[in-house]
Amino acid sequence: MANRSCVIRLSRYKNALNRLKALNFVRVFSDNLADAAGVTAAQVRKDFSLFGITGNRRGGYRVDELAEQLNKILGKDQLQEVIVVGIGNIGRALLHYPGLDKSGIRLAAGFDIDPGKVNRDSQPPALPLEELVDVVGRREVKLGVIAVPDYAAQQVLELMLSAGIRGVLNFAPICLKSPEGCIVHNINLESELENLIYFVNATENAQ
Amino acid sequence: MANRSCVIRLSRYKNALNRLKALNFVRVFSDNLADAAGVTAAQVRKDFSLFGITGNRRGGYRVDELAEQLNKILGKDQLQEVIVVGIGNIGRALLHYPGLDKSGIRLAAGFDIDPGKVNRDSQPPALPLEELVDVVGRREVKLGVIAVPDYAAQQVLELMLSAGIRGVLNFAPICLKSPEGCIVHNINLESELENLIYFVNATENAQ
Repeated sequence: MANRSCVIRLSRYKNALNRLKALNFVRVFSDNLADAAGVTAAQVRKDFSLFGITGNRRGGYRVDELAEQLNKILGKDQLQEVIVVGIGNIGRALLHYPGLDKSGIRLAAGFDIDPGKVNRDSQPPALPLEELVDVVGRREVKLGVIAVPDYAAQQVLELMLSAGIRGVLNFAPICLKSPEGCIVHNINLESELENLIYFVNATENAQ
Repeated sequence: MANRSCVIRLSRYKNALNRLKALNFVRVFSDNLADAAGVTAAQVRKDFSLFGITGNRRGGYRVDELAEQLNKILGKDQLQEVIVVGIGNIGRALLHYPGLDKSGIRLAAGFDIDPGKVNRDSQPPALPLEELVDVVGRREVKLGVIAVPDYAAQQVLELMLSAGIRGVLNFAPICLKSPEGCIVHNINLESELENLIYFVNATENAQ
């Protein structure tokens, strides 16, 4: 199985291909994709070879074929529904994130325990948390986003798990572990900023 | 220099230590930190040895000393100011992200080109984009967050760079490359979701 960084690069190649397709490009070379994704051409070829994708030195890759292969690997040949729990600032931002529909991802609904946040007419609808298990089960949703305060995150994860969610993005400022049968990726603004601070300092000290 | 994953783990160890400190713990073992960060104890010791941090098998690490060492490595011994450009849903969420002040990070100001978003009395203040160069220069801000639409992201990055910003977190749905003298980390909800989809599908197919 590919690792996380590799899959992030595949997403970038796929996005670059979509832009090239819009410009009526027919062929693309590993150097082009390398530039678009900010990696080396050797890395592009290595990533592709992991999935048995080969081009040829003369002709490169066909844009349409390559896009189709990457879409399949990334599960984009079928619509993926996602729910968001917690409709605060971050949850709201995620529920209205632009362009997801174009890439085969649909935000199915948001959920919150605060009745004041419920709005069945909004798009996507904002529903009471009690309805999560029903909605997830009925629509067979596999993906969930956690955007609640830290103290509520573990409980929300367990609720998602019991409903049948298999992959979770956690934006709560606490590191959740992947339970059996479910993959959790943590995105934490504080760690991301600390990370940047470290590298900025390391670069300055090296000068 | 440590790699990005290693620095993310250091942040997690540091957060776990702060919680242990609040519980009056004096000593901690690599197994404890491994549990808190979701890695192996060997990984914890390997990460620490990279920075010359050693414990001993019997007594483990002293919580206060270890916290101080990690804070220093992560640049948390001095206050770090951050600016945010783009006060839409995501920008607003970031400007009000909880708990950053406790960890030595201060959101200095938000900026937007829309005069309707300007509010000098809010905390942090929301300022017109024209004032960015002045604020960043005067307060020697080194870190910026981009939360604008994709078409505006590159221009904002260049503005930040000219003002003296050295590290950027990009939330715009486009992959920005690190220019000379500045480190850019891209966080893209679409790629993160695609990533999850890939791993969820890979796990299901493996069963």
